[in-house]
Amino acid sequence: MRMYDLIAKKKHGEMLTDEEISFMIDGYVKGEIADYQMSAMLMAIWFKGMNDHEITELTKVMAKSGDMVDLSPIEGKKVDKHSTGGVGDKTTLIVAPIVAACGGKVAKMSGRGLGHTGGTVDKLEAIPGYRTSLSREDFFNTVKKCGVSLIGQSGNLAPADKKLYALRDVTATVDSIPLIASSIMSKKLAAGSDCILLDVKTGSGAFMKTLDDSIKLAQTMVTIGEGAGRRTVALITDMDTPLGYGIGNSLEVIESMDVLKGKGPEDLTEVSLQLAANMLYLVGKGSIEECRAMAEKSIEDGSAFETFCTMVREQGGDDSVLKDYSKFPQAPYTAEVKADSDGFVTGMDAEKIGITSVILGAGRETKESDIDFAAGLVIHKKYGDAVKKGDSLVTLYTSKEDKLPDAEKLYREAVMIGDAKPKKMPLVFARVEKDKVEKY
Amino acid sequence: MRMYDLIAKKKHGEMLTDEEISFMIDGYVKGEIADYQMSAMLMAIWFKGMNDHEITELTKVMAKSGDMVDLSPIEGKKVDKHSTGGVGDKTTLIVAPIVAACGGKVAKMSGRGLGHTGGTVDKLEAIPGYRTSLSREDFFNTVKKCGVSLIGQSGNLAPADKKLYALRDVTATVDSIPLIASSIMSKKLAAGSDCILLDVKTGSGAFMKTLDDSIKLAQTMVTIGEGAGRRTVALITDMDTPLGYGIGNSLEVIESMDVLKGKGPEDLTEVSLQLAANMLYLVGKGSIEECRAMAEKSIEDGSAFETFCTMVREQGGDDSVLKDYSKFPQAPYTAEVKADSDGFVTGMDAEKIGITSVILGAGRETKESDIDFAAGLVIHKKYGDAVKKGDSLVTLYTSKEDKLPDAEKLYREAVMIGDAKPKKMPLVFARVEKDKVEKY
Repeated sequence: MRMYDLIAKKKHGEMLTDEEISFMIDGYVKGEIADYQMSAMLMAIWFKGMNDHEITELTKVMAKSGDMVDLSPIEGKKVDKHSTGGVGDKTTLIVAPIVAACGGKVAKMSGRGLGHTGGTVDKLEAIPGYRTSLSREDFFNTVKKCGVSLIGQSGNLAPADKKLYALRDVTATVDSIPLIASSIMSKKLAAGSDCILLDVKTGSGAFMKTLDDSIKLAQTMVTIGEGAGRRTVALITDMDTPLGYGIGNSLEVIESMDVLKGKGPEDLTEVSLQLAANMLYLVGKGSIEECRAMAEKSIEDGSAFETFCTMVREQGGDDSVLKDYSKFPQAPYTAEVKADSDGFVTGMDAEKIGITSVILGAGRETKESDIDFAAGLVIHKKYGDAVKKGDSLVTLYTSKEDKLPDAEKLYREAVMIGDAKPKKMPLVFARVEKDKVEKY
Repeated sequence: MRMYDLIAKKKHGEMLTDEEISFMIDGYVKGEIADYQMSAMLMAIWFKGMNDHEITELTKVMAKSGDMVDLSPIEGKKVDKHSTGGVGDKTTLIVAPIVAACGGKVAKMSGRGLGHTGGTVDKLEAIPGYRTSLSREDFFNTVKKCGVSLIGQSGNLAPADKKLYALRDVTATVDSIPLIASSIMSKKLAAGSDCILLDVKTGSGAFMKTLDDSIKLAQTMVTIGEGAGRRTVALITDMDTPLGYGIGNSLEVIESMDVLKGKGPEDLTEVSLQLAANMLYLVGKGSIEECRAMAEKSIEDGSAFETFCTMVREQGGDDSVLKDYSKFPQAPYTAEVKADSDGFVTGMDAEKIGITSVILGAGRETKESDIDFAAGLVIHKKYGDAVKKGDSLVTLYTSKEDKLPDAEKLYREAVMIGDAKPKKMPLVFARVEKDKVEKY
């Protein structure tokens, strides 16, 4: 078998066989197939696509290129969640304890933030003492005891994806549904959960600009998951407006705890409840309606918040900060950005808002950058809100005073103020299950 | 400027600017742009193509990546010729002295054979003593004295093409009209002639399988040539059947001399006259008809043959072999392949016939292989000929007796014998000039 012939097949739109896909991925990981051949193949896939069978096979081979986590020592159905990346997206901190409080099991490895989107692991590390790196045994024991453990990625998960992603990133082949879907799902398959809930972001700042493309990506990932024996559901959610009001690591932990205490912002609470309900549905806790009611109850009766606190203590963290937020390290400098005209917020650029938080110190500009956990911003006026000249649009938090002018300038660019109240946008646009698409 | 953005542009079918093309080619030659980015670009070009302006610019930049030969010290219009590669294609040995005998100037650098097609330089080296490597001064002086000099490629011509071709060859991006056209024409522009005649082969064994595609390639190359200020014409000629009867280096020299002496095979003589007439037309010697008459006269009066002999002597060769073929080294082993049924030759596979000659020792299996100048084959029955069982189809010549069985077997596969006399095929299908296509 020669890689040359596989490139020629794909460029003519032919289907690759299972053997050919294995040959290509295994050979690439071993370094026997050169980057320049793989990049030609990636571009051919960009143009010609892959069918469901090829994508599923590709994903399985990529997953098997490294460790396959075996979660079977943990009793019950394990459910994972993946978000394609949003600004202010702290839902994992909320849905994981809700699902655990209702009897689901969440043994979840999360990523760090890079670029304008944050990462769950960074947010967790804003809790003093919280260890995101556990031994396999401690990880399993935490899930057994609390129903949930949230840690950083460990081991060698899907190295084929790491190598392929780095190549796609420099050859303009990132924006391909088969390649995005196989990249995400290979890591989810390797991570070992029985069920997978996908949160596919849609909108101007996301990979998928249109609802139709987002649904297509979701359907592809659901097909892969189900084809690999994992129950999989996807929700398509909005990425144009940041979720909630806080952006920045400790600010997002605080807002998440507010949701778990039943006093969080409406949009974040609503999306979290829908995500949690679907995760409970996937592990077989009942209909979506029944699962939603269970999730709501876990907030009302405090069991979800209590589950989170137990997990934090179990992983070495100080849960007293979750009850008294003033114990979090505080940012020494703050500034308000004020509206310079009356009107309504008619648009928010989530990507620019994410970059604003990075400028303030909340994210990484390079992989090696340190994070300022207290840095970030709290939005006061969101999409659709009425504003009067002089109203505060946002409070900025940082330990580097000199960053404030740049941050303020960029934030102003990110918020559009117009005369007319804009149309209300849904938070969740659609739900994709095997052979089924519901648009809301 | 970033290569990433250029790949993204081309993948979306956008046009690259002149600056972008220079950035890409110069950076690639310098090693600042990686193979894996260039191969993604090549695949994007394979899918999305390039417009005439882009292709012309690409070709000019590739030509300028190395030496640009300055032929201006030679008086008069210089005319070059390029064939896209045929089996038994020895027309350069014939047309170059014809054109010179009629007052055109041919200062031509040719290539060696690789794979199943032969190279003019190898054929010339079958003439004892002939030097294919001359200093620039000797090259120019030979043209000044004889009107023609045929040498091997020297200097650093179009290194961008060398590097790109090697990459295309392993990434399944060879068969793209913009890439084929720019590859050929970059070397022709760098080689310095004022006029260029292209011989574009068409048929099952050629890059271009259909006449329409061959015409498209020819039009693209004519556009490039004219866009770069060179008068350019292309003929589309048949590649299904080998040209003439002899294949192999000294066998092809002999057949070429037969044509120059007015006793060559009809097909080879006809194609050579059409090529030579067009070359004379390009340098301004008159209408195609007038130029054809001049070319015919140069054979009748012996001036073309005499010109070739003078050039051979000038380049150190022994021209007595051209008058007495028995002085060529002779192959010690010969074999006949006989027809095993009655009928007509209904098809010939030129590629397999070319490979047969390589097996016999006439060509190179790798770049380092030595050539046996006496090896090759002489066809006795060509497309359309009637055959009787037992008739000799071909005589094989070699110095390696053990190669004869494989060569015989392959030759048999290359020749189809059927019951019905097949339709006569034209030798030249079409002629392409600036803004003008004539189909014959």
